[in-house]
Parts: sequence; C-alpha cells; structure tokens
Amino acid sequence: MDKALAGVKILDFTHLLQGPFATQMFGDLGADVIKIERKGTGDSYRAWTFLKYWVGGTESPCYLAFNRNKRSLALDLKAAATKEIIGKLVAECDIVVENFRPGVMQKLGFGYEDLKKINPRIIYCSSTGYGQDGPYADRPGQDLMIQSLSGLTTLTGRHEDPPIPLGTGIADQLGAYNIVYGLLSALYYREKTGKGQKLEINLYQCLLTHQLQEFAVTLNSGKLFDRPHSGIAHPGQSAPFGIYRTADGYMCISVNPIPVLAEVLEDEGLNAYDDPQTLYDKRDEVFFRIQASVVKNTTAYWVETMLKRDMWVSEVKNHLEAELDPQAVHLGAFASYEHPTAGTVRTVNIPVKFSETPGEIDRHPPRIGEHNEEILRELGYSDEEIAGMQRDGVL
Amino acid sequence: MDKALAGVKILDFTHLLQGPFATQMFGDLGADVIKIERKGTGDSYRAWTFLKYWVGGTESPCYLAFNRNKRSLALDLKAAATKEIIGKLVAECDIVVENFRPGVMQKLGFGYEDLKKINPRIIYCSSTGYGQDGPYADRPGQDLMIQSLSGLTTLTGRHEDPPIPLGTGIADQLGAYNIVYGLLSALYYREKTGKGQKLEINLYQCLLTHQLQEFAVTLNSGKLFDRPHSGIAHPGQSAPFGIYRTADGYMCISVNPIPVLAEVLEDEGLNAYDDPQTLYDKRDEVFFRIQASVVKNTTAYWVETMLKRDMWVSEVKNHLEAELDPQAVHLGAFASYEHPTAGTVRTVNIPVKFSETPGEIDRHPPRIGEHNEEILRELGYSDEEIAGMQRDGVL
Repeated sequence: MDKALAGVKILDFTHLLQGPFATQMFGDLGADVIKIERKGTGDSYRAWTFLKYWVGGTESPCYLAFNRNKRSLALDLKAAATKEIIGKLVAECDIVVENFRPGVMQKLGFGYEDLKKINPRIIYCSSTGYGQDGPYADRPGQDLMIQSLSGLTTLTGRHEDPPIPLGTGIADQLGAYNIVYGLLSALYYREKTGKGQKLEINLYQCLLTHQLQEFAVTLNSGKLFDRPHSGIAHPGQSAPFGIYRTADGYMCISVNPIPVLAEVLEDEGLNAYDDPQTLYDKRDEVFFRIQASVVKNTTAYWVETMLKRDMWVSEVKNHLEAELDPQAVHLGAFASYEHPTAGTVRTVNIPVKFSETPGEIDRHPPRIGEHNEEILRELGYSDEEIAGMQRDGVL
Repeated sequence: MDKALAGVKILDFTHLLQGPFATQMFGDLGADVIKIERKGTGDSYRAWTFLKYWVGGTESPCYLAFNRNKRSLALDLKAAATKEIIGKLVAECDIVVENFRPGVMQKLGFGYEDLKKINPRIIYCSSTGYGQDGPYADRPGQDLMIQSLSGLTTLTGRHEDPPIPLGTGIADQLGAYNIVYGLLSALYYREKTGKGQKLEINLYQCLLTHQLQEFAVTLNSGKLFDRPHSGIAHPGQSAPFGIYRTADGYMCISVNPIPVLAEVLEDEGLNAYDDPQTLYDKRDEVFFRIQASVVKNTTAYWVETMLKRDMWVSEVKNHLEAELDPQAVHLGAFASYEHPTAGTVRTVNIPVKFSETPGEIDRHPPRIGEHNEEILRELGYSDEEIAGMQRDGVL
C-alpha cells in the first residue's frame, strides 16, 4: 500500500526529544528521514535514560522512543567534505529541520539563507526554546524550564503543594506536533505554489498555546486559578471532577450529574449541593463527601455500576496495567520491531489510522552512522571516495 | 500575503475541546472552516466555563479559546433540508471532521460511506475516546478518564500522593494535533494521487503515544516508574531535576552538572553524590540538600547567578506573571480580537511563524448560526428559500 508521505525527503539536524519526535511522525508515514549526527557521540539523547535502564543492556529507551523509521548519517559537522555532502542532500530534500540554539546552524554554514541558495524550494524549520531573539534567546530551553515559565505548573495538584510539573516532556512533545503542523501546511502550500519558506517554532509559545482556555480566563478576567484543597482535577473545575481512592485502588469520576451520583453512592444528601455555584464554591467539601462513600467499595464494583448508568468514570491504571488493558489489546496499541543489538523492542504504535495509506514501523532506530555508505552512494559517491572520507575522519 | 491553507474547505461537525482545537489550527492558516452546530444550544462547550467566569459576562472562555477563524452554520441536524445542505457542502469540501461517539454520524446519514458517494475525494476524520470498536467503544471518553487509563496520572507528583492528573485537557489537545497530523498528511497524499480516504483517531492512543519514552522503559523492562519522595520532576529522573522553594517563591533546576551547582550553592559536600548511580538512588536526599541551600536566597538572585554559569534553570511563573514575561512580550505571545458582544478578547497567539504565509486571527469565534445566511447564499439558496427554512425551523 502507498504511504501518505512517501517521496517526502527530510534532512534532519535535530536531537534530544522534540525534533526527533517530529521527524519520526514523518517517517511513520513513509517520508525518507535522514538523521544527521555528530560522528562519535551522535544524538545526545543516546546517552539519556530513566531508571538506569538500557534496552538490551545498551540502547537508550529515550532515543529508541523517537527515532524509528529514519536513517542515520554521522559526520564531522565541521569538515569541508561535510559541506559538500549536505549541499547535495539539500538539493534533493523537501524539508530541513533543526533544533539547535539560535545561531548554531548559521555558524556551521547551514542556515536558511545558505541552504535556499542551493534549493529555493526548501522548507526550513528552526525550533528553539524561546524563539530566535529576545531577552531569553540565549537561555537554555529545556522542557522543565518551559513548564515552569509558562504557568503550567500552577495548574496541577493541590493548593498546599509546590508548583507541580507534569512527569513527561510535554513542552517538547507539543513542540514536535507544532513542527509537524507547520511543515505539513508549508508543504501543502508549496505543492500549490512552488514556494518554499522558513518556519520558526519555540517550545515556550507551544506550551502557552496548550493553555489556551486557561489563558482565556486569566487574560480576560485578571483572575488566577487557585488549586483545590482536594483532588479536584482542574483548578477551575467544580466537583465531582477528580480521582478518588477506592477500597482497592483509585478511580476517576469526571463530569457527572449529581442526582445520578447521589443515587449510585446511596448518599441522598449530595443532592443539597446540586447547583453550579455550590459545586464550585464547595467543591472540596463535596469531594471529601464523595470520597467517604467511594472508599467503601472496589474500583471494579464502582466502574461497572457507574458505567451502566452511562456515567463518565474509569479505572486508574499504571503502565503495566495499561499494557494489558483490553482496549489497548483490541486496538493493537503497542507494537514491536527487531533491533540489531537490542533484539525485539516494544513500543507504542502509530496513533492515526489511515484507510488507504496506513503508517508502519519499517526501520529500527538507526545506530550512529548506520546508513553512511548507503546514503553517500545514493548521492553518487564512489566506494573510493567513501573510503577516503573514512580515512580522513569525515565519517 | 498568502495563507498556507487558503482554499482548503472543512466541514466541521466537532464539539467540545479536541475537534474544535484541531479545526481552529486549520482556520488560523487560512482554511475555510464551516462549523456545523445544533440549532438552539450549539456546541455544548458554549455552556462550559472555569471559575464561574464568562468573557464579557456571556461568552464561554473555553468555547472562545478553540473557535476563532471559523464560520457557524446552525441547523436542525435531523431535518430533510439539512441533508440537502450538508450534501452541497460535502460536494465542495476537502475535509470532514467529527468527534461524536461511534455510530452517531452514520445514524444522521453523514457517515464516510454516505459522504464519499457525494464526493469521492473527501478526507473524512473521525475521532473518538477509545476507537470505533472494541470493549470500550461505548464508554464515554472524556479527557480525565483518558489520563487515568493511560498511566499518565502515575507519573506526576510524589510517591505519597494519589495519582495526579495534569490540570489541562492534555488528551484532547494531543488528539487535536493528531487530527491535524493525519489530515494534512492525507491532504498531501490527495494532492499527489487524487485519492481521498478515511482517518480514525482516538484520544486513548494519542495519550499512550505521548508516553512513548516512558513506555519504552516499562514495555521492555517490565519495570514501573516510582514517583520520588521529593520534588524530582520526573519519576525516572535523577537529582537535581525539580522545582525548589526559594526565599520568595519557586525556581526550577533542570539537568545540571553537580560540580557547578555545588559551587554556586557553596555546598562542596554535594560533590560526594556526583555519579549517575548515586544521583538516581539518592535523588531525594540530594533534592532536600539542594532545597536547604536554595531557600536561603531569592528566585531572582539564583536565576541570575545560575544563568551566568549557563545552568539550566528558570523562574516559576503563574499565568499573570507569564502574561508580563519579557520574552512573551517580545514574541507577541498574546493577541486580541474584537467580539460583537464580549468586546476586546485576549488570547494566545498562533504558535508557528511562517516567513511567507503567516497565520492570522481574522474572525472572532462565531455566535450560533452567525453565518447561516452567508453560507446558504454561497450554496446558491435564494432569500426566499432561506426564509422558508427559517420558518420551518431548519435554521
């Protein structure tokens, strides 16, 4: 079957989480993603891990997560021969993506102005922490700092807690989706007009955008959200919206009509709170009252009973439980591929289902420079020239 | 200036957060988004708010956040005339998007099989909570439930806390970005081949995908993340990565070399922990030791001092502080538009910067049916026919 992005060629100068996740989304749909790495160490995410765990004993789970469906070309980025190789690649690529700090690509001679001389149709995307200029342009822009500056950490948890960051790389991931959004839109425009262009994205603006509705309140009312004293799950939300302890674990009770909840919990007194004003003003009191009932029975009992009433509830699962979730199994939510050193590697499957152009995991995340010779041969270099570059330390 | 998605026409049956955010991203880049609403109440997000706050006294900040750059056509969805109107729209649209529960669009006669008979080039995207079928297909699929089922709530906060959801609609928002990713990819494919297709997206798979690197650990090692006893900001991460209390607020200290941190904090003893194993195993001890130093001086002092050493640190801001942040001001991170009843409305600006096809906020979020007559006239209906539909209660 065809792939939606077959024929799209991407020159990928990205590293760490954001850029690689973005280009992986292109690779998943059939684009040819050429990952340019520094020879030797490669993408610095290769040295990053969690829980001191290495897949197959050697491979970074973080790197593996975001680099399938790519080829790796590892080069001495400052060598003269590299400039020639990059030039040849630019001439036949559609897209260049990079997430260095501002100015790095220009210094290497690979800025937009340089590359569009080679290929005026190129679409060139730069992503930074805070933008290409301005007071923070030189600040390091890692995910946790972006969460902290954007206001996000003040929305999660309870009033008494310090600001609480989300335990995933949310700024990076939203940055990745915005790269995809921008590049695919620019690609569509180029199909129509033949014109390339330069895109700029920054993690900071992406995480502000993530809070569109919270900012819609604060920017217009001047009011700040105040986190609840209870487990209400959004600081602007009324009861019962939250996670509750059951007799054997936790469950979530989302937006639900109080009369139905009162009936299921056999607590008629709950109905006294049933108006929007009270459910907001007394949300902590209502939360703790519901909690007192919910803790008396098991998660399975409550979820089954409440789903029968079409209530908005669910179990709360950890990652091992999520792996075995019947819906995850039904959807084929997880997939695996073979890796030359790590063996069979399990991962999360491609999220969008296409009737005509399904995505696929065709390639394992490449080892550093795994496709050096293949790519250079495609560019027309002879075996002797390639051997020469190896001798000269370009590769 | 041109817009990247000018000429793209979207028939938008979505409501609440996810779908509307997706189609707004199209509208921001110039697509013509026709929002189909139930006459009378319209999108149910119009009745949703936070902090009991209504912009201008009447408008939902949640609805406003995700519906700029669209036109609204409000109809009796079950009327015979509606079927004709939708048919005419489908004939000239590129994309149909809907986020009803499985089966609803088919019952209305607007399923993919129905609409592709009218326009075989149509790209049709359905988004649900858990997919079109399987054990959870009939479950309600709201954001908090998806967070709870996907494992995400077990990554945030401390070991002693209950599972902690993020205080934003993260599943919905990632669902929106995946709609955009899928639709723009399918649109590119259609440009190349002329072929339309059907896409399916579900929030559950999108939020599993968000945890690609956490699942890379758990799926392959069988190990669960265990949240720290301290403020370490990711359950797989080592010290010092976290948010720390200062003398006058909070700051974040991301990944940083211990020797530099020890020097700045004037705590040489920190160097004793400086190896990867210890920084993970004793992360709570290290966190509290750093905390004891950081609390002795102000956020401004530490951030300035540490940034001079190129350390990865930042302030922690709330939304009012974020609004005034010098980088936000420099970037023009926030924008405003005029609304016919709410007056000047402030919002977050478009996150991707295009050199040739900048996005723009051209239209305020529409009132229910605000563009009924305009759209029907474009379809060729006469004033008499439109008046007739008004009389018959179609509009």
